[in-house]
Amino acid sequence: MNAWGKRDDMTVHERDPFNAEPPRSALADSRLTPADTFYSRNHGPVPAADPARWRLEVDGLVDRPLSLSLDELRARWEPTELEVTLQCAGNRRTGLTEVRDIPGETPWGPGAISTGRFRGIRLADVLADARPRPGAAHVAFAAPDVSPLADPPQPYGGSVPLAKALRPEVLLAWSMNGAPLPHVHGAPLRAVVPGWIGARSVKWLTRVTVRSTPSDNYFQAVAYRLPPADPEPGTAASGEGGTPLGPLSLNCAILRPDDRAHLPCGPTPVTGYALAGHGRTVARVDVSGDSGGSWQRADVSAAAGPWVWQHWHTTLDLPRGDVEIVARAWDSAGTAMPESPGRLWNPKGYANTSWPRTRVRCR
Amino acid sequence: MNAWGKRDDMTVHERDPFNAEPPRSALADSRLTPADTFYSRNHGPVPAADPARWRLEVDGLVDRPLSLSLDELRARWEPTELEVTLQCAGNRRTGLTEVRDIPGETPWGPGAISTGRFRGIRLADVLADARPRPGAAHVAFAAPDVSPLADPPQPYGGSVPLAKALRPEVLLAWSMNGAPLPHVHGAPLRAVVPGWIGARSVKWLTRVTVRSTPSDNYFQAVAYRLPPADPEPGTAASGEGGTPLGPLSLNCAILRPDDRAHLPCGPTPVTGYALAGHGRTVARVDVSGDSGGSWQRADVSAAAGPWVWQHWHTTLDLPRGDVEIVARAWDSAGTAMPESPGRLWNPKGYANTSWPRTRVRCR
Repeated sequence: MNAWGKRDDMTVHERDPFNAEPPRSALADSRLTPADTFYSRNHGPVPAADPARWRLEVDGLVDRPLSLSLDELRARWEPTELEVTLQCAGNRRTGLTEVRDIPGETPWGPGAISTGRFRGIRLADVLADARPRPGAAHVAFAAPDVSPLADPPQPYGGSVPLAKALRPEVLLAWSMNGAPLPHVHGAPLRAVVPGWIGARSVKWLTRVTVRSTPSDNYFQAVAYRLPPADPEPGTAASGEGGTPLGPLSLNCAILRPDDRAHLPCGPTPVTGYALAGHGRTVARVDVSGDSGGSWQRADVSAAAGPWVWQHWHTTLDLPRGDVEIVARAWDSAGTAMPESPGRLWNPKGYANTSWPRTRVRCR
Repeated sequence: MNAWGKRDDMTVHERDPFNAEPPRSALADSRLTPADTFYSRNHGPVPAADPARWRLEVDGLVDRPLSLSLDELRARWEPTELEVTLQCAGNRRTGLTEVRDIPGETPWGPGAISTGRFRGIRLADVLADARPRPGAAHVAFAAPDVSPLADPPQPYGGSVPLAKALRPEVLLAWSMNGAPLPHVHGAPLRAVVPGWIGARSVKWLTRVTVRSTPSDNYFQAVAYRLPPADPEPGTAASGEGGTPLGPLSLNCAILRPDDRAHLPCGPTPVTGYALAGHGRTVARVDVSGDSGGSWQRADVSAAAGPWVWQHWHTTLDLPRGDVEIVARAWDSAGTAMPESPGRLWNPKGYANTSWPRTRVRCR
């Protein structure tokens, strides 16, 4: 067993903060990702958390600030469950680092994404009781994990617009996949913001603040912003001038065969995932066994819900030699994925939504 | 004055059915498109319409079918107004026909898009009074304009899912830009389905039918489906096997300078539009004066509403000689546009969302 209860074959990018993703094939077998396989993205040390002493504060632009123990919170509002795919903004970053180096950022493969069944309460219910005041426009989440990566070092935080916070899918969750939320995934309570970058699903949540402006936390105001691909000199590293990342866009990855695998040639099962944005589903996935020269249509699983990835499967007849397998997805709005990572490269390595490519050697 | 009250410099692709788009520069000057400039897309002859005899029938899976005159309809529900950009699924098709011929489809440039301020009632209010029954899942629109292009020839129609039909932005409109809806744009009453392909905003609307399944009209069941880029032989022409088009994806076009223009070299204003999908805005537009070798960021107008295009402007310093101007937009979900139309080509020529390119000669 690896750190934090993770399986032995996780790729641990950093031990502290703990950043780890499962091998790609481990994501291929089921819609829900087991807790020991779920990717883990942190910005500081996992904080000590004593559920008995833990409280959630709800404050800011509200008529009735709240302070609640976990028992109070669980008793006060109707619990609900939802399957949600969480994806890091840096998922598939290695596709961009192959184009040009991205120093200082975790080299995520396609495994910075996982799907859980979360149980908790609706943030909207909490906010309704706290009664946002006129001028309320954003809801900030704060946690106790101090990040040395922030400038200056500060506890992790972020925010979402009030309109998103009031949607029924946004949860404060204490359970994942039918078990108590693992400590490394935010116990006793985390935000779950479906359809948005994982960075907004703040773990070890201790404070919800209603504001007129977005959070001024480093991870909202500076990081997790998509910088220009060709930034002005001196602005690149910090993401300044970039657009804040929030909702997820269409993405897709190949899970099997593994990249750099050596395989027998002939009929080869190929499988992967695709994730459409809010209000959309994955309409089609094409797969190519010759670097995009010809394509065949994959079987795409039905969407199990509006916030969940869809797996796809096909069988390619692979020739002997070095083969590049390529996939491309379309969503139900006809959105096509960009072909080249070169055109998506940015100095923070966010939002690689280019066609996934897997190179294998067939004998 | 051209046919149907359109300006003289419209590009009339066909006289019957009347299909016409404005010159691209005519779309650059204002957020709202004047009625004489608004693109017109038809599938059959514009039907005779006598407002005094016209009625709207609401039927299908409803407890209380309705039959209403225009006066009854206008008196019964609270009117509302909304700015909406309508875009044909075939907008920018010429970017695809440059890759490979697309016989039988109208060669739209970037002008199959326009923005109006529509006044009408909410379809949701009408449906609430008609009371959809259990099993209701789609809302079909029918009109009297018989299309000879359909197989077999039939009146034009289409549908949207009930969840979309119940959203507050979906209107039944009798007015555009403060004036009565022009006859060619659907008077006395048309559907306006913001954020979806123009084909679902059915004109000369006479019937709204609540159904358990999508409309089986030719223009829902066969046309306006995105076929595979590399379809199986024999299935290409009809769009069979394609995914039904509905919500719009991120798009962008260059309006000035005109394609193939001869210009003085030096600082040159460049302007265009970009349109994000539902729940998203245009976050950034980059423009290149050297075919994408280098880029500068354009000023993007604020979104005037959730369903309206955004204009963008910059000034490029163009060198002497043949120059290719390229633009690319990002939406607020970090969605990037595909670079190449070659990778988007499909036998119906829908959904060209590749980087727009304008070639000019500078002297």
